[in-house]
Amino acid sequence: MAYFKNSVQLRIRPKAEIITIGTELLTGTVLDTNARFLAQALTGEGFEVNRQASCRDDFGAIQKALKQSLEGSDVICISGGLGPTPDDITRDALAQFFSSPLVLSQRQYRMISRYYRVRHRTVPKLVSREAYFPKNARPIFNRFGIALGFTVEFRNKFIVVLPGVPNELTRLFDSEVVPVLRKRFPGICPASVLLVKTVGISEPTIMKKLGSDFFRLGTFQFGIYPEVGEVSLRIYSDSKMVISKLKRRIGRVLRDHIYSFSAEGIAQAIGRELASRKWSVSVAESCTGGSISKDIVSVPGSSRYFLGGIVAYHNSVKEQLLSVPQQLLQSRGAVSRRVAQEMARGVRERFRTNVGLAVTGIAGPSGATKNKPVGLAYIALSTSSGSNRVWKERFRGDRLQIQSRASKRALECLWRWLRRR
Amino acid sequence: MAYFKNSVQLRIRPKAEIITIGTELLTGTVLDTNARFLAQALTGEGFEVNRQASCRDDFGAIQKALKQSLEGSDVICISGGLGPTPDDITRDALAQFFSSPLVLSQRQYRMISRYYRVRHRTVPKLVSREAYFPKNARPIFNRFGIALGFTVEFRNKFIVVLPGVPNELTRLFDSEVVPVLRKRFPGICPASVLLVKTVGISEPTIMKKLGSDFFRLGTFQFGIYPEVGEVSLRIYSDSKMVISKLKRRIGRVLRDHIYSFSAEGIAQAIGRELASRKWSVSVAESCTGGSISKDIVSVPGSSRYFLGGIVAYHNSVKEQLLSVPQQLLQSRGAVSRRVAQEMARGVRERFRTNVGLAVTGIAGPSGATKNKPVGLAYIALSTSSGSNRVWKERFRGDRLQIQSRASKRALECLWRWLRRR
Repeated sequence: MAYFKNSVQLRIRPKAEIITIGTELLTGTVLDTNARFLAQALTGEGFEVNRQASCRDDFGAIQKALKQSLEGSDVICISGGLGPTPDDITRDALAQFFSSPLVLSQRQYRMISRYYRVRHRTVPKLVSREAYFPKNARPIFNRFGIALGFTVEFRNKFIVVLPGVPNELTRLFDSEVVPVLRKRFPGICPASVLLVKTVGISEPTIMKKLGSDFFRLGTFQFGIYPEVGEVSLRIYSDSKMVISKLKRRIGRVLRDHIYSFSAEGIAQAIGRELASRKWSVSVAESCTGGSISKDIVSVPGSSRYFLGGIVAYHNSVKEQLLSVPQQLLQSRGAVSRRVAQEMARGVRERFRTNVGLAVTGIAGPSGATKNKPVGLAYIALSTSSGSNRVWKERFRGDRLQIQSRASKRALECLWRWLRRR
Repeated sequence: MAYFKNSVQLRIRPKAEIITIGTELLTGTVLDTNARFLAQALTGEGFEVNRQASCRDDFGAIQKALKQSLEGSDVICISGGLGPTPDDITRDALAQFFSSPLVLSQRQYRMISRYYRVRHRTVPKLVSREAYFPKNARPIFNRFGIALGFTVEFRNKFIVVLPGVPNELTRLFDSEVVPVLRKRFPGICPASVLLVKTVGISEPTIMKKLGSDFFRLGTFQFGIYPEVGEVSLRIYSDSKMVISKLKRRIGRVLRDHIYSFSAEGIAQAIGRELASRKWSVSVAESCTGGSISKDIVSVPGSSRYFLGGIVAYHNSVKEQLLSVPQQLLQSRGAVSRRVAQEMARGVRERFRTNVGLAVTGIAGPSGATKNKPVGLAYIALSTSSGSNRVWKERFRGDRLQIQSRASKRALECLWRWLRRR
């Protein structure tokens, strides 16, 4: 995986463990995004997460997992199995473990009743189970859904129990659990985090450019994470000074590749550049079929600079809507430098935008010819100021990978062009 | 989460546990797709996966996790921490645990040398570590990457150790580990699986329609999984007869909602319907910004029925490319029944397709008015045979959720319309 992780220890932090409950996790039917969210959130709050475990919806398994976690940690975050059906047994298993009876939260029950009243439905009988909590616990009221969460002090450990519906879990954690954790662990100090998002550079090249003396700049934990078409860095340190020193160094050696020091995606970075210049963009897509437009439109407020796009999948569309000469399509083929260029110009003129961006390529599995392999793509940019660029690319992978890599690379080209203006 | 899972036990199966190793998993920086793959693969092979745990790259943590897993399982699958950097210590921690020295696999080392020779590079010194395995183990040669895997018989348990690079892990498991497992557990029998994909029906309604006597039709494990705009069922049984009985029953009661009995997405189901009728489609998108086109184009061979689309984000595009009358945009607003209808007709006529599909809506967070809340959307369908339909919808969630729900619902509308022809 070639992740580099230096093993420097930060200051001593409270230890945390995560338990996610659900048979669907152990048949692999569901990807456990909750465990990741909790790991990230607890790390961000300054805890050291030492273990994560998943177990089935089973009394014995849940209790065993909790028993194991009680041994080595200060905080245990549990999620899942708080739903209404008979096999959602987390609250029963925990109540038994704590030797504490389940009691009804009148307040959560009223919230549930309101939820159903608004939807003109009566509260299903099974659902009322979700308003119960062990008597030794403090409820976490759930205004985002039905199931009550709760926290328990047990043998000097702090246990947090949350529903497993991902968007309820994350919102409850941020709004309800964080304040409680900060109160319970007053000495805790969130580590400083430095996030760096880069495009157009590989993981080994980044490591080489940083150089080995980079790791002697201070005490920090370093993570490097390749994703589709980009690589992120995430660095934790107890010292804000170290973080700013690292930021300066990274900013200098990776300058041409950093599009953000925050969690934003490249479409957001592009949006900022366009909006600040009051420029507009339109997009013509063939093999990426709308991916680029979709990414641009995912940004709130994109209507300020995005007018629209044309998905020119069939050649007739390239001809009629983008004014690509038929003769060119025949002589050079749809996947060619000239056609990409004409597509970019065509969409820019048609939409009367400052910039036109176009992609044409072969996503496969079929469609390749002797000289044009699967993965070949051309990305073109045309501007009202007369600037024209075409990039020839060869992407690897299956159809979906080629489509997402081509789309990400097109956004990179646009971003790179914009920041040089 | 309101998953329903009946607790019926299938025939007694060998028990499996999964351990994924890597500090990056416990800071939440990486999503653990390996754990899910192994859970799915082991379940498919007929094992009962009872626990999954993740631990840091730490001698004590790795050994503790293995010790815990040895208690309750027949097979333990371990992945991660076999890389070249000093903190990849899985093989050292395991060798120590087994009291077995590490020895070099000459064969893997030759494979590594060849890998670097082809790339005109010399083998980095650290990398040779990856060809070592504990003496009591049997190597799993890795022709997809660098790091050697291995299997160990230890205290009558079977331990499988694989590199954590996802595409090496999955390929090694399928090609090398599966045969070894089948030999080691000769009585094992992969369960039969029934997959059902539905749209336009909620989880509680499915449960109600199936009825409680459904669960008396035989011995099986039942999972129900809501995703964006759709719900899947996954059922395991030891008996093929039970599976076909369940399939018939489900097919009858959920008939209007099932788009597939396989892993395919709804865009594939739509593609089948269109291709078999030799019909073509084009798409006009406003708030979904290209998502629908993107989904359609994700299907190999979609060029047979998909001509293209227009992302009409700005009103001027709706007017000029889709011929929506300006007066209509002003009097009714862009998010209205009539405009959706005109967009569908406009794109169908412009692309000369049999069917035109359109979406217009407010994805938020801004853009709402007194009478038009965030999440309001209209989906329209127009056909060359004169059929016109509009659906008014109100989606919940944040911008991305509204966009993906609207896009999924539009595909559902198209699919539903197609299968009634």
